[in-house]
Amino acid sequence: MLTLYHLALSPYSRKVRVALAEKGIAFTLKVEKVWERRPDFLRLNPACQVPVLIEEEGHAIPDSGVICEYLEERFPEPSLLGHGALERAETRRLVAWFDIKFGREASANLLGEKLMKRFLRRGEPNSEAIRAGLENIHYHLDYIAFLAERRKWLGGEQFSLADIAAAAHLSCIDYIGDVPWAKHPGAKDWYARVKSRPTFRPLLAERVPGLPPPAHYADLDF
Amino acid sequence: MLTLYHLALSPYSRKVRVALAEKGIAFTLKVEKVWERRPDFLRLNPACQVPVLIEEEGHAIPDSGVICEYLEERFPEPSLLGHGALERAETRRLVAWFDIKFGREASANLLGEKLMKRFLRRGEPNSEAIRAGLENIHYHLDYIAFLAERRKWLGGEQFSLADIAAAAHLSCIDYIGDVPWAKHPGAKDWYARVKSRPTFRPLLAERVPGLPPPAHYADLDF
Repeated sequence: MLTLYHLALSPYSRKVRVALAEKGIAFTLKVEKVWERRPDFLRLNPACQVPVLIEEEGHAIPDSGVICEYLEERFPEPSLLGHGALERAETRRLVAWFDIKFGREASANLLGEKLMKRFLRRGEPNSEAIRAGLENIHYHLDYIAFLAERRKWLGGEQFSLADIAAAAHLSCIDYIGDVPWAKHPGAKDWYARVKSRPTFRPLLAERVPGLPPPAHYADLDF
Repeated sequence: MLTLYHLALSPYSRKVRVALAEKGIAFTLKVEKVWERRPDFLRLNPACQVPVLIEEEGHAIPDSGVICEYLEERFPEPSLLGHGALERAETRRLVAWFDIKFGREASANLLGEKLMKRFLRRGEPNSEAIRAGLENIHYHLDYIAFLAERRKWLGGEQFSLADIAAAAHLSCIDYIGDVPWAKHPGAKDWYARVKSRPTFRPLLAERVPGLPPPAHYADLDF
């Protein structure tokens, strides 16, 4: 059985959870409070971040990008990257878009400031960063709508890691109520299709103690 | 023939150039001044960053991570990731370490502040960021020495993308004279071995107009 160290509102952990579920791989979840810098966890991942996957023989595989490539090599079907080098490159391009660009411009500014600083009591949230995050998210939602108008899913005709990465980030920001769905019907329609996948349900059922999500968060018909 | 859009002191472009050369793939280099946001280039990569690889039929593949995975699929030998899912995961872990963690903690603070702000005249370099970069680089060099003491190359017994990623970042910072080699003989010994590879020579011969590198930059016996 595989084990995944994670945090509930870590987009990168969520991406791996959905990828594992889409591939039908059973796994156990363990919460890792990375800010405690537990020595045993540092040995698993010197970068001290979640997610970390522990494979059957106990080897640790850190970093969500590394884990997803590993899963694709170990369990190739169903493929979450697609088939053919160009199709796979397009999926990976979008994964990088959401994990790096969206991550820096939206998730870090919103989740980083609002959640991490609140829970870790590391000073006041930076209101300028939050404002930037709330502004940046619009053009990313426009990009999602642009893609979803032209393709069945973000990366092409198949549901892929591109959809998973985008939805993983958005689901965390949606948990704190900061996704302006009403202004982005195209992106909303795509997200409704992701939400209705059985593999996404565990994320919608998740609750962080002391931080209830808005009512629409788990609602498939939001 | 493949074409690579790049910038001389972009670590991510350098990583792809060495990867292409190690695989023995011929390619043409084109400089792309990304800050000009050229419409034709934006169509190739809406994220407007280098590197972007144009394959034989004209398809654009952006993002250095995406390009390297594409090259590995199209031209599997010699492999730059290694063989076996675990070995490949370890290589990818280190690539992520250098591209993401080292990139944020060292390259962005040093190259971003000193080069981009100077050339683009976008305000004064942030001295706090530069100080952080100069401090952070030490523990990364310690980590390189730690790995190089235990393995022939950073990722294992074979020269891999882990070495290429680390050396690509360090070579750019070395160009502006900010790598404290004297204090890190273990890392220096490893870098000397990378420098002596024929595939690395074009990077050492490169010069940015108006910005000469320190004398030791291209010296194999520095």
